[in-house]
Amino acid sequence: MQSLTFEPGPAFARQLDAEDELAAFRDAFLLAEPDLIYLDGNSLGRLPHRTVERMATVVEREWGRDLIRGWNAGWYEAPSRVGEKVAQLVGAAPGQVVVSDSTSVNLFKLVMAALALRPERDRIVSDVLNFPSDLYILQGCIDLLGNCHHLHLVPSDDDITVDLDELHEAIDERTALVTLSHVTFKSGYLYDAAAVTEWAHEAGALVLWDLSHSAGVVPMELDRWGVDLAVGCTYKYLNGGPGAPAFLYVRRDLQENVLSPIWGWFGQRTPFAFDLDYEPVRGVGRFLVGTPPVLSLLAMEPALDLTLEAGLAAIRRKSVHLTSYLIYLLDTLLVPLGFGLGSPRDASRRGSHVSVRHPEGYRINRALIEEMEVIPDFREPDNIRLGVAPLYTTFSDIWQAIDRLGRVVKEERYLHYPTERDAVT
Amino acid sequence: MQSLTFEPGPAFARQLDAEDELAAFRDAFLLAEPDLIYLDGNSLGRLPHRTVERMATVVEREWGRDLIRGWNAGWYEAPSRVGEKVAQLVGAAPGQVVVSDSTSVNLFKLVMAALALRPERDRIVSDVLNFPSDLYILQGCIDLLGNCHHLHLVPSDDDITVDLDELHEAIDERTALVTLSHVTFKSGYLYDAAAVTEWAHEAGALVLWDLSHSAGVVPMELDRWGVDLAVGCTYKYLNGGPGAPAFLYVRRDLQENVLSPIWGWFGQRTPFAFDLDYEPVRGVGRFLVGTPPVLSLLAMEPALDLTLEAGLAAIRRKSVHLTSYLIYLLDTLLVPLGFGLGSPRDASRRGSHVSVRHPEGYRINRALIEEMEVIPDFREPDNIRLGVAPLYTTFSDIWQAIDRLGRVVKEERYLHYPTERDAVT
Repeated sequence: MQSLTFEPGPAFARQLDAEDELAAFRDAFLLAEPDLIYLDGNSLGRLPHRTVERMATVVEREWGRDLIRGWNAGWYEAPSRVGEKVAQLVGAAPGQVVVSDSTSVNLFKLVMAALALRPERDRIVSDVLNFPSDLYILQGCIDLLGNCHHLHLVPSDDDITVDLDELHEAIDERTALVTLSHVTFKSGYLYDAAAVTEWAHEAGALVLWDLSHSAGVVPMELDRWGVDLAVGCTYKYLNGGPGAPAFLYVRRDLQENVLSPIWGWFGQRTPFAFDLDYEPVRGVGRFLVGTPPVLSLLAMEPALDLTLEAGLAAIRRKSVHLTSYLIYLLDTLLVPLGFGLGSPRDASRRGSHVSVRHPEGYRINRALIEEMEVIPDFREPDNIRLGVAPLYTTFSDIWQAIDRLGRVVKEERYLHYPTERDAVT
Repeated sequence: MQSLTFEPGPAFARQLDAEDELAAFRDAFLLAEPDLIYLDGNSLGRLPHRTVERMATVVEREWGRDLIRGWNAGWYEAPSRVGEKVAQLVGAAPGQVVVSDSTSVNLFKLVMAALALRPERDRIVSDVLNFPSDLYILQGCIDLLGNCHHLHLVPSDDDITVDLDELHEAIDERTALVTLSHVTFKSGYLYDAAAVTEWAHEAGALVLWDLSHSAGVVPMELDRWGVDLAVGCTYKYLNGGPGAPAFLYVRRDLQENVLSPIWGWFGQRTPFAFDLDYEPVRGVGRFLVGTPPVLSLLAMEPALDLTLEAGLAAIRRKSVHLTSYLIYLLDTLLVPLGFGLGSPRDASRRGSHVSVRHPEGYRINRALIEEMEVIPDFREPDNIRLGVAPLYTTFSDIWQAIDRLGRVVKEERYLHYPTERDAVT
């Protein structure tokens, strides 16, 4: 990696852009508003040009002309075919990843399967930095199983990371499952998944990683780390489109011992024999349930190809470069204005977004969106999340965003926004 | 309804087409191969022209340009907004239908919710004509709950219908839930849902209807019939597109007493507060789980509008007219060739497809598809299913299909096809 010494100012940003080995990939995405600084690719990735073409083909030719024949011409295999592309991005050999359902539904299936493998254990370990949506699923599973399990949430002092010794200690002989976000949604803290997986296995527990905020920006080796189970979202850094179905990973040597709690006909051994009794297919396919949303499923394929072409090593290099530059500018230009860093300073423990904290974060975020042509997002209580997507985010984007954040505060542009919260964003 | 006296021959079919009050709706659909006789709209409905435009807008403008702002501009409300359109087609007042997930996942959620409402009862009543996919879900729920429930399947003598007295008798004081396909997938038998719902309620049981094969072609009154729960598919007669997400209905006065087994953040009271503890929203929205597949969800909206414009009364009139004509032609032209009827002869007990049986049904179906430009589908052991979709199926389509079915047998065109089965269709 090149040495990370930076200077402020737009000229230096342009110089970094000129040296960017991934610069050409930006042209692969629709930039409908060229002046818009979009730093929310960690919530919804941009639209690749190829996807526009692909969707027109899927709608007009595959659905419109092929009609039901589309199932025999590629739709039926799509959950596996697309899954194998994701597999290459998460370090999984073939036959362990499928794409189907939402992240939450996939998490439900895998948590229930995991708990059934450790019936004598009653503890689930997670942390307070995990997606609330994941915690809700865990709470629902515990309720469904008669409230015999205990959800142990490792606390956080600073909302950025947890005490790893405390986590290690929490994983004990009562623990059935350890489940965490690989990159936490608010601070962008990146767990050492290999180490935590080892702790879980040493205690005889299973591990389930939520890769939603790491897939497509952080290289990973699920097979090599011995990860048991994983789920992840495809509409963030994987650019799969709004609500694109999620993926799930089940380690090969667990597959014959686990069942989905939802016995679906797409996971049936012979779905078109229409047998009256369920018999799960061999392999990870048993975690498929119903007919997948084909349009949303196929939309993600061209985007996955782009990520594979760019390569995760180059993507991670640029991601670290971008977030390090962002933190340098924050320290230099924004800290004097009352901002603070809400993400790890150590690049090796940081995903691809940086949270910038300010007591007036909510209103500053509103002003940025409505007056400054910058789109980050906001997470309570005070985090303005700036997501960098190395395939299309430029160093000039980062410079502009930090410069405009400073202007919003210096010019007091945020003061006329209400303090009550919107429903969404 | 006009009297149903028919004649054979293409001229009579053209006359019926000339009198068709819904004829104009055919032009609303893409007819990419004008000579193709498509009789599989009960598996995958045709593509409306409006959907092509809508999808281009959703992809290029809403995703491509609006990016994350799309959530505030209509996506977030889409499961409810689209649900209310479905509600109008199933006789449900507002606030009881949402669109999300697959039919199987929705069925899982509602079956688990129903069984939790009748904890002292251990019987689930269904029939052997139900979708195998639905039976798999039921078997999975029973397994998940410790195999304390018994699935009672009412048998069928003829694969067309069941003995209703036997069904009535099966619904007893042990019965927690009665769940059936409103229109059965193979024979097209249409249950008297009002009567069966009453039987269930008289026994203190809940009822859950799968409306996949009736929604959009059979008028229904879920509210008036007192139905408790329902699910249904949107990619068949509702023309929502391949794998379009499914709907679910929960009767208003049950809503506060039931929980989904899958506690999802889209069913959380305040999803964007990111509270660590799940608190379900009031109403049917608590059965939403994760982020919906937006492209697949929005694709169905123009198609629902078309069905609402045509009106279910006119659609049902034409459906009965088409299937009655089909059966007349079958009796007249195909029975002498060894074919038989696999559907109810009584139009009031028939959905919108007719199964035509023949010992060589599998090979005849293959020949029809590959040599005769007719697309039906095949269901084991001997059913060629001919689905009529009143918005675009013509009487001439029916004439041509029956004529070509006869030719396949008379000319022995099916003999050179293998008897082993394909994976799909």
